[in-house]
Amino acid sequence: MTAFILHNYFRSSTSVRVRAVLNWKGLPYEYVPHHLRRGEHREASYLAINPQGLVPSLVLEDGTTLTQSLSIIEYLEREHPEPPLLPKTSIDRARVRAIAYSIACEVHPLNNLRVLEYLRSAFGADEHAIALWFRHWVNETFKPLEKMLAEDAKTGRFCHGDAPSIADVCLYAQVINNQRFNVDMSGYPTISRIFEACAQLPQFQQAAPDNQPDAE
Amino acid sequence: MTAFILHNYFRSSTSVRVRAVLNWKGLPYEYVPHHLRRGEHREASYLAINPQGLVPSLVLEDGTTLTQSLSIIEYLEREHPEPPLLPKTSIDRARVRAIAYSIACEVHPLNNLRVLEYLRSAFGADEHAIALWFRHWVNETFKPLEKMLAEDAKTGRFCHGDAPSIADVCLYAQVINNQRFNVDMSGYPTISRIFEACAQLPQFQQAAPDNQPDAE
Repeated sequence: MTAFILHNYFRSSTSVRVRAVLNWKGLPYEYVPHHLRRGEHREASYLAINPQGLVPSLVLEDGTTLTQSLSIIEYLEREHPEPPLLPKTSIDRARVRAIAYSIACEVHPLNNLRVLEYLRSAFGADEHAIALWFRHWVNETFKPLEKMLAEDAKTGRFCHGDAPSIADVCLYAQVINNQRFNVDMSGYPTISRIFEACAQLPQFQQAAPDNQPDAE
Repeated sequence: MTAFILHNYFRSSTSVRVRAVLNWKGLPYEYVPHHLRRGEHREASYLAINPQGLVPSLVLEDGTTLTQSLSIIEYLEREHPEPPLLPKTSIDRARVRAIAYSIACEVHPLNNLRVLEYLRSAFGADEHAIALWFRHWVNETFKPLEKMLAEDAKTGRFCHGDAPSIADVCLYAQVINNQRFNVDMSGYPTISRIFEACAQLPQFQQAAPDNQPDAE
Protein backbone atom coordinates (compact mmCIF):
# COMPACT_ATOMS: atom_id res chain seq x y z
CA MET A 1 0.00 0.00 0.00
CA THR A 2 1.32 3.40 -0.97
CA ALA A 3 -0.53 5.99 1.04
CA PHE A 4 1.67 8.93 0.16
CA ILE A 5 3.07 10.59 -2.94
CA LEU A 6 6.32 12.45 -2.32
CA HIS A 7 7.28 15.12 -4.82
CA ASN A 8 10.99 15.63 -4.30
CA TYR A 9 14.52 15.75 -5.68
CA PHE A 10 17.32 13.39 -4.78
CA ARG A 11 19.80 16.08 -3.71
CA SER A 12 17.39 18.44 -1.95
CA SER A 13 18.24 18.60 1.72
CA THR A 14 14.63 19.21 2.74
CA SER A 15 13.64 16.14 0.68
CA VAL A 16 16.23 14.06 2.57
CA ARG A 17 14.56 15.14 5.82
CA VAL A 18 11.08 14.01 4.79
CA ARG A 19 12.34 10.75 3.26
CA ALA A 20 14.21 9.92 6.49
CA VAL A 21 11.06 10.53 8.56
CA LEU A 22 8.83 8.47 6.25
CA ASN A 23 11.37 5.64 6.32
CA TRP A 24 11.87 5.86 10.08
CA LYS A 25 8.13 5.56 10.65
CA GLY A 26 7.81 2.75 8.13
CA LEU A 27 5.45 4.71 5.85
CA PRO A 28 5.63 3.69 2.20
CA TYR A 29 5.47 6.38 -0.47
CA GLU A 30 5.52 6.84 -4.20
CA TYR A 31 8.65 8.72 -5.25
CA VAL A 32 8.06 11.45 -7.85
CA PRO A 33 11.24 13.28 -8.85
CA HIS A 34 11.40 16.89 -10.03
CA HIS A 35 14.75 17.94 -11.41
CA LEU A 36 15.55 21.29 -9.76
CA ARG A 37 18.55 22.12 -11.94
CA ARG A 38 16.40 21.65 -15.04
CA GLY A 39 13.69 23.84 -13.48
CA GLU A 40 11.06 21.09 -13.46
CA HIS A 41 9.70 22.44 -10.15
CA ARG A 42 8.63 25.62 -11.98
CA GLU A 43 6.50 23.85 -14.57
CA ALA A 44 2.75 24.52 -14.48
CA SER A 45 1.98 20.90 -13.63
CA TYR A 46 4.03 21.12 -10.43
CA LEU A 47 2.89 24.65 -9.54
CA ALA A 48 -0.66 23.26 -9.56
CA ILE A 49 0.45 20.92 -6.76
CA ASN A 50 2.61 23.41 -4.87
CA PRO A 51 2.26 27.09 -5.92
CA GLN A 52 5.56 27.86 -4.18
CA GLY A 53 7.36 25.62 -6.65
CA LEU A 54 9.47 24.11 -3.90
CA VAL A 55 10.17 20.50 -3.02
CA PRO A 56 9.23 18.47 -1.13
CA SER A 57 5.44 18.24 -1.23
CA LEU A 58 3.61 15.29 0.29
CA VAL A 59 0.23 14.30 -1.15
CA LEU A 60 -1.95 12.43 1.34
CA GLU A 61 -4.36 9.63 0.51
CA ASP A 62 -7.31 12.07 0.51
CA GLY A 63 -5.54 14.29 -2.03
CA THR A 64 -4.48 17.03 0.40
CA THR A 65 -1.03 18.40 -0.41
CA LEU A 66 1.28 19.28 2.45
CA THR A 67 4.26 21.59 1.89
CA GLN A 68 7.31 22.78 3.85
CA SER A 69 9.42 19.89 5.11
CA LEU A 70 9.16 20.73 8.81
CA SER A 71 5.42 21.13 8.60
CA ILE A 72 5.15 17.75 6.85
CA ILE A 73 7.34 16.19 9.56
CA GLU A 74 5.19 17.63 12.38
CA TYR A 75 2.13 16.22 10.62
CA LEU A 76 3.70 12.76 10.32
CA GLU A 77 4.85 12.87 13.94
CA ARG A 78 1.33 13.63 15.18
CA GLU A 79 -0.51 11.17 12.93
CA HIS A 80 2.09 8.39 13.12
CA PRO A 81 3.66 8.91 16.54
CA GLU A 82 5.59 5.61 16.66
CA PRO A 83 8.53 5.48 16.66
CA PRO A 84 8.64 9.06 17.97
CA LEU A 85 10.91 11.79 16.64
CA LEU A 86 10.14 14.26 19.42
CA PRO A 87 10.75 13.71 23.15
CA LYS A 88 7.92 13.80 25.70
CA THR A 89 8.34 16.96 27.78
CA SER A 90 7.78 20.44 26.44
CA ILE A 91 11.27 21.55 27.52
CA ASP A 92 12.94 18.63 25.75
CA ARG A 93 10.80 19.19 22.67
CA ALA A 94 11.93 22.82 22.69
CA ARG A 95 15.56 21.69 22.84
CA VAL A 96 15.11 19.31 19.89
CA ARG A 97 13.18 21.86 17.84
CA ALA A 98 15.74 24.59 18.56
CA ILE A 99 18.51 22.36 17.15
CA ALA A 100 16.37 21.49 14.13
CA TYR A 101 15.44 25.14 13.50
CA SER A 102 19.02 26.36 13.97
CA ILE A 103 19.77 24.32 10.85
CA ALA A 104 16.44 24.75 9.05
CA CYS A 105 16.16 28.52 9.67
CA GLU A 106 19.81 29.64 9.88
CA VAL A 107 21.83 27.41 7.55
CA HIS A 108 19.77 25.75 4.87
CA PRO A 109 17.76 28.79 3.61
CA LEU A 110 21.00 30.63 2.84
CA ASN A 111 22.55 27.72 0.99
CA ASN A 112 19.67 26.81 -1.24
CA LEU A 113 20.23 26.37 -4.97
CA ARG A 114 18.10 29.44 -5.79
CA VAL A 115 20.04 31.63 -3.38
CA LEU A 116 23.39 30.57 -4.80
CA GLU A 117 22.02 31.31 -8.27
CA TYR A 118 21.02 34.82 -7.17
CA LEU A 119 24.52 35.44 -5.81
CA ARG A 120 25.97 34.42 -9.17
CA SER A 121 23.63 36.53 -11.29
CA ALA A 122 23.22 39.66 -9.12
CA PHE A 123 26.66 39.89 -7.53
CA GLY A 124 28.77 37.98 -10.05
CA ALA A 125 29.84 35.54 -7.33
CA ASP A 126 32.28 32.93 -8.68
CA GLU A 127 32.55 29.36 -7.40
CA HIS A 128 35.13 30.40 -4.80
CA ALA A 129 32.87 33.13 -3.40
CA ILE A 130 29.90 30.73 -3.44
CA ALA A 131 31.85 28.14 -1.47
CA LEU A 132 32.97 30.77 1.07
CA TRP A 133 29.36 31.91 1.48
CA PHE A 134 28.13 28.34 1.92
CA ARG A 135 30.77 27.49 4.52
CA HIS A 136 30.34 30.79 6.34
CA TRP A 137 26.69 30.09 7.18
CA VAL A 138 27.36 26.48 8.10
CA ASN A 139 30.14 27.57 10.46
CA GLU A 140 28.10 30.39 12.00
CA THR A 141 25.60 27.80 13.22
CA PHE A 142 27.79 24.71 13.61
CA LYS A 143 30.31 26.41 15.97
CA PRO A 144 27.77 27.19 18.70
CA LEU A 145 25.83 23.97 17.93
CA GLU A 146 28.95 21.85 18.46
CA LYS A 147 29.56 23.54 21.82
CA MET A 148 25.94 23.19 22.83
CA LEU A 149 25.78 19.49 21.92
CA ALA A 150 29.17 18.68 23.47
CA GLU A 151 28.43 20.39 26.80
CA ASP A 152 24.85 19.26 27.37
CA ALA A 153 24.26 16.01 29.26
CA LYS A 154 21.04 15.57 27.29
CA THR A 155 23.10 14.81 24.19
CA GLY A 156 23.54 11.08 23.74
CA ARG A 157 24.28 8.89 20.77
CA PHE A 158 22.03 11.33 18.93
CA CYS A 159 21.27 15.04 19.46
CA HIS A 160 18.84 14.21 22.25
CA GLY A 161 19.45 10.94 24.04
CA ASP A 162 20.02 7.65 22.28
CA ALA A 163 17.22 7.69 19.71
CA PRO A 164 16.96 9.94 16.66
CA SER A 165 14.74 13.03 16.64
CA ILE A 166 13.83 15.73 14.15
CA ALA A 167 17.07 17.45 15.22
CA ASP A 168 19.05 14.49 13.84
CA VAL A 169 16.96 14.47 10.67
CA CYS A 170 17.98 18.08 9.98
CA LEU A 171 21.60 17.52 11.07
CA TYR A 172 21.95 14.45 8.85
CA ALA A 173 20.57 16.22 5.76
CA GLN A 174 22.74 19.29 6.34
CA VAL A 175 26.00 17.37 6.83
CA ILE A 176 25.38 15.49 3.57
CA ASN A 177 24.84 18.86 1.89
CA ASN A 178 28.10 20.19 3.38
CA GLN A 179 30.06 17.49 1.59
CA ARG A 180 29.38 19.13 -1.78
CA PHE A 181 31.15 22.29 -0.61
CA ASN A 182 33.97 20.55 1.25
CA VAL A 183 33.09 21.98 4.65
CA ASP A 184 35.93 21.17 7.05
CA MET A 185 34.23 19.09 9.76
CA SER A 186 37.38 18.64 11.93
CA GLY A 187 36.17 21.27 14.40
CA TYR A 188 32.88 19.46 14.87
CA PRO A 189 33.59 16.09 16.52
CA THR A 190 30.21 15.83 18.24
CA ILE A 191 28.22 16.79 15.14
CA SER A 192 30.33 14.34 13.10
CA ARG A 193 29.81 11.55 15.61
CA ILE A 194 26.03 12.11 15.56
CA PHE A 195 26.06 12.22 11.76
CA GLU A 196 27.82 8.84 11.69
CA ALA A 197 25.24 7.41 14.10
CA CYS A 198 22.47 8.62 11.76
CA ALA A 199 24.28 7.26 8.70
CA GLN A 200 24.28 3.81 10.30
CA LEU A 201 20.49 3.73 10.45
CA PRO A 202 19.17 1.97 7.31
CA GLN A 203 16.14 4.29 7.27
CA PHE A 204 18.37 7.36 7.11
CA GLN A 205 20.80 5.74 4.68
CA GLN A 206 17.93 4.97 2.33
CA ALA A 207 16.96 8.66 2.41
CA ALA A 208 20.39 9.84 1.25
CA PRO A 209 20.69 11.48 -2.20
CA ASP A 210 22.86 8.72 -3.70
CA ASN A 211 20.23 6.10 -2.98
CA GLN A 212 17.38 7.75 -4.89
CA PRO A 213 16.07 6.71 -8.32
CA ASP A 214 16.91 10.14 -9.82
CA ALA A 215 20.47 10.23 -8.41
CA GLU A 216 23.10 11.27 -10.93
CA MET B 1 4.39 37.94 38.65
CA THR B 2 7.01 37.81 35.93
CA ALA B 3 7.63 34.21 35.04
CA PHE B 4 9.73 34.82 31.94
CA ILE B 5 12.75 36.84 30.94
CA LEU B 6 12.81 37.72 27.24
CA HIS B 7 16.17 38.62 25.74
CA ASN B 8 15.35 40.48 22.56
CA TYR B 9 15.66 43.57 20.38
CA PHE B 10 12.86 45.94 19.45
CA ARG B 11 13.30 45.67 15.69
CA SER B 12 14.07 41.94 15.44
CA SER B 13 11.32 40.22 13.54
CA THR B 14 11.76 36.96 15.48
CA SER B 15 11.46 38.97 18.71
CA VAL B 16 8.18 40.49 17.47
CA ARG B 17 6.87 36.94 16.99
CA VAL B 18 7.62 35.82 20.53
CA ARG B 19 6.34 39.06 22.08
CA ALA B 20 3.07 38.71 20.16
CA VAL B 21 2.62 35.15 21.42
CA LEU B 22 3.45 36.03 25.05
CA ASN B 23 1.00 38.95 24.87
CA TRP B 24 -1.70 36.89 23.15
CA LYS B 25 -1.52 34.26 25.88
CA GLY B 26 -1.42 36.88 28.63
CA LEU B 27 2.01 35.79 29.89
CA PRO B 28 3.97 38.60 31.56
CA TYR B 29 7.70 38.85 30.93
CA GLU B 30 10.71 40.92 31.83
CA TYR B 31 12.04 42.73 28.76
CA VAL B 32 15.83 42.65 28.39
CA PRO B 33 17.06 44.48 25.28
CA HIS B 34 20.24 43.61 23.37
CA HIS B 35 21.21 46.15 20.74
CA LEU B 36 22.01 44.14 17.60
CA ARG B 37 23.50 47.03 15.63
CA ARG B 38 25.91 47.72 18.48
CA GLY B 39 26.77 43.99 18.63
CA GLU B 40 25.54 43.53 22.19
CA HIS B 41 24.30 40.03 21.29
CA ARG B 42 27.92 38.96 20.75
CA GLU B 43 29.11 39.97 24.21
CA ALA B 44 30.30 37.16 26.52
CA SER B 45 27.49 37.83 28.99
CA TYR B 46 24.87 37.12 26.32
CA LEU B 47 26.75 34.22 24.73
CA ALA B 48 26.62 32.55 28.16
CA ILE B 49 22.81 32.67 27.86
CA ASN B 50 22.60 31.77 24.16
CA PRO B 51 25.84 30.50 22.55
CA GLN B 52 24.36 31.22 19.11
CA GLY B 53 24.32 34.92 19.94
CA LEU B 54 20.88 35.35 18.42
CA VAL B 55 17.75 36.94 19.81
CA PRO B 56 15.24 36.12 21.11
CA SER B 57 15.97 33.82 24.06
CA LEU B 58 13.35 33.08 26.66
CA VAL B 59 14.47 32.20 30.18
CA LEU B 60 11.91 30.15 32.10
CA GLU B 61 11.20 30.37 35.82
CA ASP B 62 13.42 27.33 36.49
CA GLY B 63 16.35 28.99 34.68
CA THR B 64 16.12 26.95 31.47
CA THR B 65 16.87 29.04 28.40
CA LEU B 66 14.87 28.40 25.25
CA THR B 67 16.14 29.62 21.87
CA GLN B 68 14.82 29.89 18.29
CA SER B 69 11.57 31.84 18.09
CA LEU B 70 9.46 29.05 16.58
CA SER B 71 10.68 26.54 19.13
CA ILE B 72 9.82 28.99 21.93
CA ILE B 73 6.38 29.51 20.39
CA GLU B 74 5.71 25.74 20.17
CA TYR B 75 6.74 25.46 23.84
CA LEU B 76 4.35 28.26 24.86
CA GLU B 77 1.55 26.76 22.77
CA ARG B 78 1.90 23.37 24.49
CA GLU B 79 2.33 24.67 28.04
CA HIS B 80 -0.16 27.53 27.77
CA PRO B 81 -2.67 26.26 25.21
CA GLU B 82 -5.31 28.96 25.75
CA PRO B 83 -6.02 30.93 23.68
CA PRO B 84 -4.67 28.56 21.02
CA LEU B 85 -2.40 29.58 18.14
CA LEU B 86 -2.67 26.26 16.32
CA PRO B 87 -5.88 24.65 15.00
CA LYS B 88 -7.06 21.24 16.17
CA THR B 89 -6.62 18.80 13.30
CA SER B 90 -3.25 17.64 12.02
CA ILE B 91 -4.06 18.75 8.48
CA ASP B 92 -5.04 22.24 9.60
CA ARG B 93 -1.97 22.45 11.82
CA ALA B 94 0.12 21.49 8.79
CA ARG B 95 -1.48 24.30 6.77
CA VAL B 96 -0.79 26.87 9.49
CA ARG B 97 2.78 25.69 10.05
CA ALA B 98 3.47 25.66 6.30
CA ILE B 99 2.46 29.33 6.07
CA ALA B 100 4.55 30.17 9.14
CA TYR B 101 7.57 28.26 7.81
CA SER B 102 7.27 29.74 4.32
CA ILE B 103 8.06 33.06 6.00
CA ALA B 104 10.35 31.76 8.75
CA CYS B 105 12.42 29.47 6.50
CA GLU B 106 12.22 31.21 3.09
CA VAL B 107 12.03 34.96 3.72
CA HIS B 108 13.35 35.99 7.09
CA PRO B 109 16.66 34.05 7.13
CA LEU B 110 17.73 35.77 3.91
CA ASN B 111 16.86 39.24 5.12
CA ASN B 112 18.51 39.13 8.51
CA LEU B 113 20.82 41.96 9.57
CA ARG B 114 23.84 39.64 9.52
CA VAL B 115 23.12 38.43 5.99
CA LEU B 116 22.73 41.97 4.67
CA GLU B 117 26.05 42.83 6.35
CA TYR B 118 27.75 39.89 4.60
CA LEU B 119 26.41 41.07 1.23
CA ARG B 120 27.87 44.51 1.88
CA SER B 121 31.29 43.27 3.00
CA ALA B 122 31.83 40.26 0.70
CA PHE B 123 30.08 41.43 -2.46
CA GLY B 124 30.23 45.21 -2.04
CA ALA B 125 26.44 45.40 -2.22
CA ASP B 126 25.20 49.00 -1.97
CA GLU B 127 21.90 50.05 -0.44
CA HIS B 128 20.13 49.68 -3.79
CA ALA B 129 21.35 46.10 -4.24
CA ILE B 130 20.46 45.30 -0.63
CA ALA B 131 16.91 46.58 -1.11
CA LEU B 132 16.54 44.57 -4.33
CA TRP B 133 17.76 41.43 -2.52
CA PHE B 134 15.37 42.01 0.38
CA ARG B 135 12.37 42.57 -1.87
CA HIS B 136 13.27 39.65 -4.14
CA TRP B 137 13.01 37.11 -1.32
CA VAL B 138 9.83 38.65 0.06
CA ASN B 139 8.21 38.55 -3.38
CA GLU B 140 9.37 34.97 -4.10
CA THR B 141 7.34 33.80 -1.10
CA PHE B 142 4.58 36.42 -0.97
CA LYS B 143 3.43 35.87 -4.58
CA PRO B 144 2.47 32.20 -4.09
CA LEU B 145 1.38 32.88 -0.50
CA GLU B 146 -1.07 35.57 -1.66
CA LYS B 147 -2.54 33.18 -4.20
CA MET B 148 -2.76 30.36 -1.69
CA LEU B 149 -4.45 32.52 0.96
CA ALA B 150 -6.84 34.16 -1.53
CA GLU B 151 -7.98 30.88 -3.09
CA ASP B 152 -8.36 28.71 0.01
CA ALA B 153 -11.72 28.70 1.78
CA LYS B 154 -9.89 28.00 5.05
CA THR B 155 -8.56 31.56 5.00
CA GLY B 156 -10.77 33.84 7.09
CA ARG B 157 -10.19 37.12 8.83
CA PHE B 158 -6.76 35.64 9.60
CA CYS B 159 -4.58 33.12 7.73
CA HIS B 160 -6.62 30.24 9.08
CA GLY B 161 -10.19 31.06 10.05
CA ASP B 162 -11.17 34.01 12.20
CA ALA B 163 -8.66 33.72 15.04
CA PRO B 164 -4.93 34.36 14.84
CA SER B 165 -2.43 31.50 14.62
CA ILE B 166 1.33 31.18 14.46
CA ALA B 167 0.99 31.84 10.71
CA ASP B 168 -0.37 35.31 11.50
CA VAL B 169 2.37 35.87 14.05
CA CYS B 170 5.01 35.29 11.36
CA LEU B 171 3.10 37.24 8.71
CA TYR B 172 2.62 40.22 11.04
CA ALA B 173 6.32 40.38 11.97
CA GLN B 174 7.43 40.03 8.34
CA VAL B 175 5.13 42.73 6.97
CA ILE B 176 6.42 45.16 9.61
CA ASN B 177 9.95 44.27 8.52
CA ASN B 178 9.02 44.88 4.87
CA GLN B 179 8.17 48.49 5.64
CA ARG B 180 11.83 49.32 6.22
CA PHE B 181 12.64 48.29 2.65
CA ASN B 182 9.54 49.83 1.04
CA VAL B 183 8.19 46.53 -0.27
CA ASP B 184 5.30 47.31 -2.63
CA MET B 185 2.35 45.54 -1.04
CA SER B 186 -0.20 46.47 -3.74
CA GLY B 187 -0.03 42.97 -5.25
CA TYR B 188 -0.84 41.39 -1.90
CA PRO B 189 -4.39 42.43 -0.94
CA THR B 190 -5.09 39.31 1.12
CA ILE B 191 -1.79 39.43 3.02
CA SER B 192 -2.34 43.17 3.61
CA ARG B 193 -5.87 42.60 4.89
CA ILE B 194 -4.66 39.93 7.30
CA PHE B 195 -1.82 42.18 8.44
CA GLU B 196 -4.35 44.93 9.23
CA ALA B 197 -6.48 42.45 11.18
CA CYS B 198 -3.40 41.50 13.22
CA ALA B 199 -2.44 45.15 13.73
CA GLN B 200 -5.84 45.77 15.28
CA LEU B 201 -5.20 43.26 18.06
CA PRO B 202 -3.78 45.13 21.07
CA GLN B 203 -1.59 42.10 21.91
CA PHE B 204 0.05 42.23 18.49
CA GLN B 205 0.25 46.03 18.48
CA GLN B 206 2.09 45.92 21.79
CA ALA B 207 4.62 43.53 20.25
CA ALA B 208 5.51 45.94 17.42
CA PRO B 209 9.02 47.45 17.32
CA ASP B 210 7.86 51.04 17.91
CA ASN B 211 6.18 50.12 21.17
CA GLN B 212 9.26 48.63 22.86
CA PRO B 213 11.36 50.33 25.55
CA ASP B 214 14.51 50.20 23.37
CA ALA B 215 12.79 51.62 20.25
CA GLU B 216 14.74 54.39 18.53
